[in-house]
Amino acid sequence: MRTPPCLLSLTLDSAVHNLSNITDLSPFPDHILIELFLRTLRAGKLTERVLKLFIATGKDEVFSLIQALNIQVTVTPVLPTSKLMSLSIKDDEIDIVIGALRPDLTSFMNEWRTIFSRFHLIIVKDPDLKEELKIPEGFNLDVYKKPDIDRVVGTSTSTIFSGYSCRYFGYLVSRKKYIISVDDDCYPAKDNKGILVDAVAQHITNLTTPATPFFFNTLYDPFTEGADFVRGYPFSLRSGVQCALSCGLWLNLADYDAPTQALKPEERNSRYVDAVLTVPARTLMPISGINIAFNREVIGPALLPSLRLGGEGKFRWETMEDIWSGMCVKVVCDHLGLGVKTGMPYVWRNDRGDAIASLRKEWEGVKLMEEVVPFFQSVRLSREATTTEDCVAEVANVVKEQLESKDPMFARAAKAMVDWVKLWKSVGSSTSSPGA
Amino acid sequence: MRTPPCLLSLTLDSAVHNLSNITDLSPFPDHILIELFLRTLRAGKLTERVLKLFIATGKDEVFSLIQALNIQVTVTPVLPTSKLMSLSIKDDEIDIVIGALRPDLTSFMNEWRTIFSRFHLIIVKDPDLKEELKIPEGFNLDVYKKPDIDRVVGTSTSTIFSGYSCRYFGYLVSRKKYIISVDDDCYPAKDNKGILVDAVAQHITNLTTPATPFFFNTLYDPFTEGADFVRGYPFSLRSGVQCALSCGLWLNLADYDAPTQALKPEERNSRYVDAVLTVPARTLMPISGINIAFNREVIGPALLPSLRLGGEGKFRWETMEDIWSGMCVKVVCDHLGLGVKTGMPYVWRNDRGDAIASLRKEWEGVKLMEEVVPFFQSVRLSREATTTEDCVAEVANVVKEQLESKDPMFARAAKAMVDWVKLWKSVGSSTSSPGA
Repeated sequence: MRTPPCLLSLTLDSAVHNLSNITDLSPFPDHILIELFLRTLRAGKLTERVLKLFIATGKDEVFSLIQALNIQVTVTPVLPTSKLMSLSIKDDEIDIVIGALRPDLTSFMNEWRTIFSRFHLIIVKDPDLKEELKIPEGFNLDVYKKPDIDRVVGTSTSTIFSGYSCRYFGYLVSRKKYIISVDDDCYPAKDNKGILVDAVAQHITNLTTPATPFFFNTLYDPFTEGADFVRGYPFSLRSGVQCALSCGLWLNLADYDAPTQALKPEERNSRYVDAVLTVPARTLMPISGINIAFNREVIGPALLPSLRLGGEGKFRWETMEDIWSGMCVKVVCDHLGLGVKTGMPYVWRNDRGDAIASLRKEWEGVKLMEEVVPFFQSVRLSREATTTEDCVAEVANVVKEQLESKDPMFARAAKAMVDWVKLWKSVGSSTSSPGA
Repeated sequence: MRTPPCLLSLTLDSAVHNLSNITDLSPFPDHILIELFLRTLRAGKLTERVLKLFIATGKDEVFSLIQALNIQVTVTPVLPTSKLMSLSIKDDEIDIVIGALRPDLTSFMNEWRTIFSRFHLIIVKDPDLKEELKIPEGFNLDVYKKPDIDRVVGTSTSTIFSGYSCRYFGYLVSRKKYIISVDDDCYPAKDNKGILVDAVAQHITNLTTPATPFFFNTLYDPFTEGADFVRGYPFSLRSGVQCALSCGLWLNLADYDAPTQALKPEERNSRYVDAVLTVPARTLMPISGINIAFNREVIGPALLPSLRLGGEGKFRWETMEDIWSGMCVKVVCDHLGLGVKTGMPYVWRNDRGDAIASLRKEWEGVKLMEEVVPFFQSVRLSREATTTEDCVAEVANVVKEQLESKDPMFARAAKAMVDWVKLWKSVGSSTSSPGA
């Protein structure tokens, strides 16, 4: 039960409404000044002029409040910067990149039509795929096939783009700020209220709101509507850092490895977790390429095809390219002070492949992680590495130094990383429309 | 569309059903052996005898599989150990500890009755509270009041238990393995299907299943039903570590600080996130005392009342004792290789207090975090610190060395930590029934 407003409260409300007539706030006692400040802020009336009025009082309490709430004195109208972020992203700043590992994309494209049709799509056909692609009408897209890849990177390099790695060619030739990429066996998911998930909007939200890698917020992403930083979260860390990578998740068939899949052939993921969170700095995770988005301008060169297993096949659980690339991206993001988020959006992933048949092939990949995780956990980059390209090149050097002797696969990965940075620099400055 | 089972598949199924008649598996080719092994495991037929049959083949592939799936050769029936964990906890291993900051606990106790009535409760009355407690009938409980506290710890020490800190007295006198503690303004929550959340069961599940602090699992807690480790998660890390602390969350009134609460007086948390996750090693977070559970035998002495703000009051946002204690616990858990989980269970938290009135009081606490977070992020304990008591004493020493000069509050906190360890050791060996 609330008591009726007191006279002071009514007076303050009135003061907020009449701020334009007030020229001096210094006669107010401290506690009234603070309350007036908060009410002004809440009412959205803290313009630059009004802020200057408060600053002119010279009161310590006011300065503390301005500093703690991270209010920028030059911005008008003034609101805490962390909440100023809005999705002022244009559709043409986004490329949807699809690697086509199977020829018939009809149902895939039709299922995604309502979400994808506003955007430009880059479809890269797996160079090993012989059949012609079937793509329905009504999309704004460019398709890149083996001859296009050969033309851009040369026939000797084009082998790096076989299988799931074909999508990386799309990352290379895109000129957009944001890339969103989804495997061709994934369909749009529904949230736990049955509403279709707009994976593009969620990924872009994740990428355009700050990440908070230096302290964990127990209520998950503080920039989600209805959420905030919990008590005890340092104010100096609340503005966060730029988010470079958004890792989405999977309903139905989760991204398990072949042994887990073989042991639990009937298991399906039905848990829709309504959250996005920043993966803390210096924490590694298995980044899956199934459903991801990233800021290409910022972190593009770190998403690369470099680790290829001996018996790599055409099922996700037979590959490790995305896991390796993910470790590399995370280390680079940590070094450059960028954020990585995980959680929503979900996609609906369909069953395909025989896990037991894959088991022998992927065995190499499973054992590999025992070497790879401690390695990436220990990598520290130098101060001289100030760009993503620098960082990737440094990681490649350390891979060569420390892992080469353990398996020739690592030497090949290190070389591929160095080559990729060169390729990124050379292709990045050329035009690259398909069939040109 | 699935093809009908092939002859090999039918033969293998038949072999699984007739394992008891098989005495030698060595003639089987490798790939059939692996498939048979997996089918045997899936059918729950991998007994010790059968496992020995597989081991007797001497095949590398079998050994790799046994190692990667972390199968223990001595256990029978044999299943991956990580899934062997079950909630074989007895009710009398648990104490529910409630700090009473208001006299009338009638509605609080009645709301929790279905969940709490099976367990022993320890109610500690805030020594500053003058009125008599009102507690409904039908619970198995001990109530500790100021005279009880004075008797156990002496009148000079009893002041550390005023306000929200009264609950720590309950932690001190409990003799149970697990403690669950909920603020007296919280009621049971409902999940997003409208089902009442059993916070005790969820906390105990969190504490009795392993935590995974060394690598982040993108599908959250892999020990939740229907979940597992995702592709790329190293098998050597899948057995996890013991979980020492479970931090629950809050629906309705979230645990914001006074400035945030003052800015958003109408904001309520309605987002039920269906997840539990391990907070990664070396990642700090603001641990709230509102809804927590812990393994008292393992980490008990690290939950302590030590930091008291000058203007500390009787509202959560006026206190920092739990945040400070939480930093200490997390550092100790990281050092001892223990896990901390956060997420479910939720409680429903009711509105109370006037945030604007609290703002000036808590200001000290908000600024404090700017010193405290970098401090705890940099603390490293010595190898000699092998018990929780050792660790707390070491943290106290570093607090004294590094923070004492910044604010006398830190010197008091360091002393309180040292005193607490002594108190824990002395009270831990004595009996302590109330009113004795």
